[in-house]
Amino acid sequence: MLADDELGSRREKYEEPLPESYAVAFEQINADPNHQLVVAETDGRVVGTLHLIFLPSISYQGGLRAQVESVRVDKGIRNLGIGSEMMRWAIECARERGAQLMQLTTHRSREDAHRFYERLGFQKSHLGMKLSLK
Amino acid sequence: MLADDELGSRREKYEEPLPESYAVAFEQINADPNHQLVVAETDGRVVGTLHLIFLPSISYQGGLRAQVESVRVDKGIRNLGIGSEMMRWAIECARERGAQLMQLTTHRSREDAHRFYERLGFQKSHLGMKLSLK
Repeated sequence: MLADDELGSRREKYEEPLPESYAVAFEQINADPNHQLVVAETDGRVVGTLHLIFLPSISYQGGLRAQVESVRVDKGIRNLGIGSEMMRWAIECARERGAQLMQLTTHRSREDAHRFYERLGFQKSHLGMKLSLK
Repeated sequence: MLADDELGSRREKYEEPLPESYAVAFEQINADPNHQLVVAETDGRVVGTLHLIFLPSISYQGGLRAQVESVRVDKGIRNLGIGSEMMRWAIECARERGAQLMQLTTHRSREDAHRFYERLGFQKSHLGMKLSLK
């Protein structure tokens, strides 16, 4: 799913076997209690991904931040509420843990995503800036 | 410094003694090898802050991301290159650790900051969206 759009296809490598770098990252994420990598399943098939990260922060009076990354839903079954269900789970999870805010970045070209997050209450208050280090 | 601008003054609490929440957050950040909280000093006085975070990620082929938060320079001595020096240190540090990209968000209203990060090579490719959980 990460590779299954125009932006993702340029930066992911979906092949058998998957590059080992994915497995290494998975192990690191899995071992860290501040990270949760979740999938949505329908009939035993993985149809969505979401990476929830908790970030202790010195700003916001030392308030805990929650960040989501890698939110994807299978192209064939979008608009069925799977993305919203995953995000509502993440928001609930973040509230339970006492996070003060949830943050994410989304590419400027993903207009559907902007509307999706706005419907969930997110505000387009910031710019997301990236620097490639490769 | 976090409280010393229009946005910060609304969300920080700078008083003696500082709210305990700051100390609790500091301990958590300090104990996590994926977090580095650094300050810039001039003549023994703290004049800048930067919070560097390493995030293992399942996207970008499992590539490590570096994220910066809470970048601030003392109002009285801006434009002397202290911010650039801190950022260059962070970028170097992220490269050494093998991070594939560095990411940050900055409020839409901070136009000086946008130019500052663009000069360092950052691209305004994303929107940063926030949801208050309070």
